[in-house]
Amino acid sequence: MHKPFLKVLLLQEARELLRKFGPRDVEGIPIEQGLFRVVSEPIKSSEDLPPFDRSTMDGFAVRCGDTFGATEASPALLNVVGEAAMGEISNLRLRSGQAVRIWTGGAIPANADAVVMLEHSEDLGHDTIEILKAVAPFDNVVRKGEDFKAGVTLLNTGHRLRPQDLGLLASMGRTKVSVFKTVHVAVISSGDEIVPIEQTPPPGCVRDVNRYTLTAGIIETHAKPFWIGIAADRVKDLSARIAQGLTSADLLLISGGSSMGSRDFVIEAIQAYEDSEILFHGVSVSPGKPLILARVGLHPVIGLPGHPASAMICFEQFVVPLIRRLEGENVVTPFLRPSLQAFLSRNVPSKEGRMDFVRVRLQVKEGRIIALPIPAKSGMISGMVRADGYIRINEDCEGRYKGDLVTINLFSHWIEENIEKEYISGHENPGRSSGNFFQPAPQEKLSKI
Amino acid sequence: MHKPFLKVLLLQEARELLRKFGPRDVEGIPIEQGLFRVVSEPIKSSEDLPPFDRSTMDGFAVRCGDTFGATEASPALLNVVGEAAMGEISNLRLRSGQAVRIWTGGAIPANADAVVMLEHSEDLGHDTIEILKAVAPFDNVVRKGEDFKAGVTLLNTGHRLRPQDLGLLASMGRTKVSVFKTVHVAVISSGDEIVPIEQTPPPGCVRDVNRYTLTAGIIETHAKPFWIGIAADRVKDLSARIAQGLTSADLLLISGGSSMGSRDFVIEAIQAYEDSEILFHGVSVSPGKPLILARVGLHPVIGLPGHPASAMICFEQFVVPLIRRLEGENVVTPFLRPSLQAFLSRNVPSKEGRMDFVRVRLQVKEGRIIALPIPAKSGMISGMVRADGYIRINEDCEGRYKGDLVTINLFSHWIEENIEKEYISGHENPGRSSGNFFQPAPQEKLSKI
Repeated sequence: MHKPFLKVLLLQEARELLRKFGPRDVEGIPIEQGLFRVVSEPIKSSEDLPPFDRSTMDGFAVRCGDTFGATEASPALLNVVGEAAMGEISNLRLRSGQAVRIWTGGAIPANADAVVMLEHSEDLGHDTIEILKAVAPFDNVVRKGEDFKAGVTLLNTGHRLRPQDLGLLASMGRTKVSVFKTVHVAVISSGDEIVPIEQTPPPGCVRDVNRYTLTAGIIETHAKPFWIGIAADRVKDLSARIAQGLTSADLLLISGGSSMGSRDFVIEAIQAYEDSEILFHGVSVSPGKPLILARVGLHPVIGLPGHPASAMICFEQFVVPLIRRLEGENVVTPFLRPSLQAFLSRNVPSKEGRMDFVRVRLQVKEGRIIALPIPAKSGMISGMVRADGYIRINEDCEGRYKGDLVTINLFSHWIEENIEKEYISGHENPGRSSGNFFQPAPQEKLSKI
Repeated sequence: MHKPFLKVLLLQEARELLRKFGPRDVEGIPIEQGLFRVVSEPIKSSEDLPPFDRSTMDGFAVRCGDTFGATEASPALLNVVGEAAMGEISNLRLRSGQAVRIWTGGAIPANADAVVMLEHSEDLGHDTIEILKAVAPFDNVVRKGEDFKAGVTLLNTGHRLRPQDLGLLASMGRTKVSVFKTVHVAVISSGDEIVPIEQTPPPGCVRDVNRYTLTAGIIETHAKPFWIGIAADRVKDLSARIAQGLTSADLLLISGGSSMGSRDFVIEAIQAYEDSEILFHGVSVSPGKPLILARVGLHPVIGLPGHPASAMICFEQFVVPLIRRLEGENVVTPFLRPSLQAFLSRNVPSKEGRMDFVRVRLQVKEGRIIALPIPAKSGMISGMVRADGYIRINEDCEGRYKGDLVTINLFSHWIEENIEKEYISGHENPGRSSGNFFQPAPQEKLSKI
């Protein structure tokens, strides 16, 4: 009686299909707007940086040979012949036995080849200083072109810009950068029982949660959300919304209406387009099985489950990789999340052949971080709110045991202060705490937790 | 001769001083704009969610007693008496032996107490179905108020909003949320050698990099940057810029001009204000020692090193925690970064009593992730660009050895695809790969890398 899913794919198989999609247009933007954008052409340096030998310290520019053997017990004496003013190339030429006062960032005068730190000198007055420590050639100096040389490729196509990359562009005097266009993502909520949040839901109805979780997720992914509206469970209404989404965005998300059964209006509405294709319907993940990937012309269309938690997990695992590709990155994985390791508070069974995402709440107990699985039905939003993150249970794994050390992918880059503290202290000292963590004695695995 | 730093603090001591500062104003905003904002009052639910017993599956609403003992070999027969339409409360009252067709999200009719999944039923025609699997009370049902009950506190003051939290607010019909105001951060670059990036630097000058790295960092931290300009190395010019920053922002950052030596104009300009205080000058971190924290009235002022890499590390370790506090979070730590574990390619010495942040580049070699320390002088921007992240070496540690497994804090939530792959596959299978990682045989520590 019941039409099975066309073919249920493993998550990784489903993601590989995302390679069909890629970025289209590029644009030039001011670098001030470049954070998180993806560069669309290799960026080469046009000049040497720094353009001159530059001091990295406050101190004295010297000829290092003059400091040979200098120590506190037997300092070298030098004659201070001037100061290298900031923002100028001094016309002083250093001779043996001479030094020039210099500041951090200042240009080394001709014939000087090292800088003695202020702390390693002693002012004797009358333009004479003692050098208390020898310097080697180019100590405390960044040489011309040492940061980078002219003509070198510094950033490749597909690189997503971080703050330091913008600093690099600035250092070269690039005021603009060529990037792939921002991805616009249209969002539709579907279902007769869904009402806008301003309304008091009539009996049997609930407010539209997915609009808000998905648009926020899109913003977090550095793309731009575009809200289309709520579609009723009728092909005609859904088709009109889909048409609107396809003209206004690069990618269309439809939540709800994609579960097995008689309401596969999403499939029907997509197939009404001549140049369209259902790439898959059904992925072996929990929560989230009834995921749809389709194509209308060049536009990807994704059908997400209606349950808020399922929709969010599918968004991260599947829509985020697609957005990354549409923005020009060559990956089919979600963004990395901060993560930590914690002990599982109880057994978590899983079905082989299915990838499970189990939401957990974190707690510090006797100096250890414990992960408590949340018995969340996927229709509930509060489970996602109580959760600090999730553990992933792979297809080849039948579950995890109480006391197992598991990796928690955190939902945000902040957690409660006491857990942050535990995390940070354990994080950097594997010898002290994670050492124990990774090898709990067998009896510990079952007690203490 | 040389005035020492007033007092060099440990990083943690310096951060504790940030507790002097906190959020000021609050505002009400639409929830669509709420992502990453910090709530300024506890948020309680005003009603039960869901407001009715709700199906989590497509299938049949039943009285679970009727399915007792049902199996594929010995199914229970039920009579389908109708369908629970979406968005309505059915006026059907189920009697023994009856079932009602229902969809995911639909309201359970009166007297029904469970849902049988479509997959566990067989349609015999003539409104008769076989139930192939027994259900327990409220299987596949989210009960009224099970997500949350009216009157429960769902989010506390100081909680930073994630996508699911906005979904929670939506589910309650809250269109607005009260949050602490966004923090505005004024940025000044200082130094006679610094020129705007549009200019070709005259001999001895370099372009302004910190403006771009710092404003991008501020955006990444969810605050708003406000560019003041480049200040020359004169107290008068700097004072005018500081005055402008104090009137236009909640927090003022000045990069450059804070190293030891004679150019402590920042200190002088701050002390010219009557109600001002230098909270510290100098923190035992590398790179970044000459960090300044001051207060003018209620406004924090931070002096950052001029070197781009030092300024960025200090920004993350010290300015980000301050911004978090000014935005209403009760922490004095930076945001968490994604992290991974990698083997160090060479020894990295460190000075006891100082916290070191060593930039590293990642490489996959023979199926392992290797961290290569970057011999970056802090005056160079390219070292930060080549780096994927940094390792932290604590004050009580004299360094890390070649072959040590170290934690890399990644500069972004994306890395090269091949490293992401290695990372993800190792990440979830401690038994398979990180198990080896954490216990490399002694001979392995020195060979293979």
